[in-house]
Amino acid sequence: MTSESLSEQHKKLGRAVTSLISEYAERLESAPVASPATPADLKRLFDEPLPLAGMPAEEILEQFARDVAPHAMQISSPRYFGQFNPTPLAIGVWADALCSALNQNAGAWRNGPTSALIEAQVIGWLCDLIGYGPGAFGVLASGGSEANLIALKCARDKAARDMCDLGVRAAGADLTIYASEQCHFSVEKSVDILGLGRKSLRKIDTDERFHIRVNLLREAIEKDRSDGRVPFCIVGIAGATSTGVIDPLPELAAIARENDCWFHVDAAYGGGLAFSDNQKKKLSGIELANSITFDPHKWMFVPFSCGTTLVRDGGNVLRDSFDISPEYLSEDRGGSDVQYDFFRYGQMGTRRFNALKLWMAFKFMGKRGYAETVERHLELTRHFADRLDELPDFERVGEIETAVCCFRYLPEHVRGLAPEDQDRAQQALQQRIEKSGRAFFPSTILQGRRALRVNINSYLTERRHVDDLVELLREEGNALGVDR
Amino acid sequence: MTSESLSEQHKKLGRAVTSLISEYAERLESAPVASPATPADLKRLFDEPLPLAGMPAEEILEQFARDVAPHAMQISSPRYFGQFNPTPLAIGVWADALCSALNQNAGAWRNGPTSALIEAQVIGWLCDLIGYGPGAFGVLASGGSEANLIALKCARDKAARDMCDLGVRAAGADLTIYASEQCHFSVEKSVDILGLGRKSLRKIDTDERFHIRVNLLREAIEKDRSDGRVPFCIVGIAGATSTGVIDPLPELAAIARENDCWFHVDAAYGGGLAFSDNQKKKLSGIELANSITFDPHKWMFVPFSCGTTLVRDGGNVLRDSFDISPEYLSEDRGGSDVQYDFFRYGQMGTRRFNALKLWMAFKFMGKRGYAETVERHLELTRHFADRLDELPDFERVGEIETAVCCFRYLPEHVRGLAPEDQDRAQQALQQRIEKSGRAFFPSTILQGRRALRVNINSYLTERRHVDDLVELLREEGNALGVDR
Repeated sequence: MTSESLSEQHKKLGRAVTSLISEYAERLESAPVASPATPADLKRLFDEPLPLAGMPAEEILEQFARDVAPHAMQISSPRYFGQFNPTPLAIGVWADALCSALNQNAGAWRNGPTSALIEAQVIGWLCDLIGYGPGAFGVLASGGSEANLIALKCARDKAARDMCDLGVRAAGADLTIYASEQCHFSVEKSVDILGLGRKSLRKIDTDERFHIRVNLLREAIEKDRSDGRVPFCIVGIAGATSTGVIDPLPELAAIARENDCWFHVDAAYGGGLAFSDNQKKKLSGIELANSITFDPHKWMFVPFSCGTTLVRDGGNVLRDSFDISPEYLSEDRGGSDVQYDFFRYGQMGTRRFNALKLWMAFKFMGKRGYAETVERHLELTRHFADRLDELPDFERVGEIETAVCCFRYLPEHVRGLAPEDQDRAQQALQQRIEKSGRAFFPSTILQGRRALRVNINSYLTERRHVDDLVELLREEGNALGVDR
Repeated sequence: MTSESLSEQHKKLGRAVTSLISEYAERLESAPVASPATPADLKRLFDEPLPLAGMPAEEILEQFARDVAPHAMQISSPRYFGQFNPTPLAIGVWADALCSALNQNAGAWRNGPTSALIEAQVIGWLCDLIGYGPGAFGVLASGGSEANLIALKCARDKAARDMCDLGVRAAGADLTIYASEQCHFSVEKSVDILGLGRKSLRKIDTDERFHIRVNLLREAIEKDRSDGRVPFCIVGIAGATSTGVIDPLPELAAIARENDCWFHVDAAYGGGLAFSDNQKKKLSGIELANSITFDPHKWMFVPFSCGTTLVRDGGNVLRDSFDISPEYLSEDRGGSDVQYDFFRYGQMGTRRFNALKLWMAFKFMGKRGYAETVERHLELTRHFADRLDELPDFERVGEIETAVCCFRYLPEHVRGLAPEDQDRAQQALQQRIEKSGRAFFPSTILQGRRALRVNINSYLTERRHVDDLVELLREEGNALGVDR
């Protein structure tokens, strides 16, 4: 607590935070990407009883600078090659301060008039971008998991009359849903949340390029039908979490149509290709989807959290599933307000004015700025793959369709090992590099086998950072070979 | 796009945003609380095609200052008496800039080591505060709606074996859930999302003080049992959205225990009473709940969005419901990491480092700072009620248990009207005051009849603002009487 006016507090804190953030940005090039601290180390830093007396804001910022920032993952580093987590745009960072200062409750028009209109505007831009017609609409979500949940609830509720009122039993038979085994775990989580059960999800095997095998999909649907179940939804992936690849969307759309299934496309990451006129064709067929997940907090460099569900046939589809109008928001304020009450379109009630940072990001980058960045990321990824192909100890896995490259460390002495030991070698190399602090990338599992995975998702990453990564892989690979 | 370094961009934008926010705070006392702009007016301001070229950040901030901020609802105003939307703490506003600069993906320990540990820390503080034992745990959520959804999924999944795998059909009978008719609409939304159907919710009538009638609750449970349904959950409210009142929690806990039901308490707003040793007794019985919803973005003045689900019997309860481990996060990094992977505890995957602003708010205010503010809000609310009791044209409705006061405008000429015309008079007065820009409060519906509702939720509100509000009600009430 303090006796300073709110305006004075903002002035002092704003200056201090501006210094902290600009200095942080200055160090990004040289700072270790990951901290060696363990959970136990960090627990010691932060373990203290519930504070009784307040403390000055300056001291809190000091603890932030000393204990929080250095042990954070340096997501913004040009040497961070992790899980679609972007270097956020500066305008997005400061939009979040403005958003919090206004503190609009963006759920209802009444509590946030400009937040409502700006959300409608950015949703319109995303629908345009993705190739949806003018009747499309959507809603911001906390991220891809919630965006998938919202979309799959719409799909579930279309499968039987009275689903919202009576629940899953309204279907009168087991509903089944189909996605490639590479789908994001939130698809499985969503069908569980929606009361359909995790087993209602059929995970269809992928081919050697990690795309869904459409013949197996057809067989699974036929089998379920002949067993008395009701297929209700097919999920296509545009930018898979592990490999970045894109399912054959036109074929999936056709199978969905033939089987009277909802067609959802999870383009949380890959949707960013739509900015580039050269790359957009990879998303062909996405405009046939009933719903799309698109996360601006991935390839649009908007700070967390900012996801969206887009719906081809308009806001009524979302409102049919989600609208429950509480009495304390039932006032009439000119008739046209309901269409801007975004709490009627999704899971959230009270919500942050997340549309602000997305609106500012769109204006700052423009379609062209995004197109250039997306294309550069693809070039850098191809450059990485080409350099990797020169190293005899590494072998690439799968295709490069977005800015993701998967590979394995397979020098002669590893090649001869049992599969699980080969897998351990991948983890060992990943761990060495993580601990070096000179770069970060994760490993993943592809068709049961461990692989390494590099994603370029920082607008700060340049060719030299990629070359450094290749050199690091070579060095640490050699060192690992000697250590064994 | 720009050629400036990221650090330079941050320096420039940070300075500009500091000015914008401190000037905004300076104007709060005098600025109109609500804008008269209609949705159509605002649509004209923001309607433009997808930007092709980028524009300078400075121009974007100019448009923000010109078009966005003035037509926002001035939630932070000391004259805003709306829906539990607080004036955010300055430290919370700037924490959000720091959060976005670090851009931790707070879903998994690997992607945000300090975010994970700090989330565990603030969850621990909230559990302590509310009176839970040391085994309790929880998870941050996007707000009360999601917090209720998470809690009710845990409740649903305890109701039958294999619920997560097989879905609602695993129960073998209809599950039913009970809450007062005053419960937040997210309870109904949640049971719909969870596949139980909106009709599985029994809305129990309330008494003249708007508390749940426990005899009717018992009857409803018995009726459902004798009809072959399975009661699985009772929801108590601690701080109802319309009236702020608190259900008889110990009695609800006993009924839940007798009926083998999960007991959930929605203390999204009222949980704040726990800070005050004088007020905490009103929450007595909350510590018996299996789960609690508590929103720091209400009475803790943390900027949106920050909700929590707290669970008495620990994190395993949440993990049993939500944990689906994706392969790309399956690396072992020292064994103790899983307990800090918060994506395993709730709906969200990728998530914002929301724990940072809550952690900073706790430290800045301390338990004592919150206790003083909560107690002051209650005093101001009682002062408002006392002043209102002096005005012959107004009549109070219900009790004051938190910082909410409901009332009706009932001068002689309104008293004689039909109920629906009396209701219209409430709306007319609410609208006059909203349009004056001199204060904002909403109306609500209580047991079928329109009432006015004032909530004090700004630490900037002083006695003089409350006195001004009383004067405004008197003036506008009189003017309305003359106008008719």
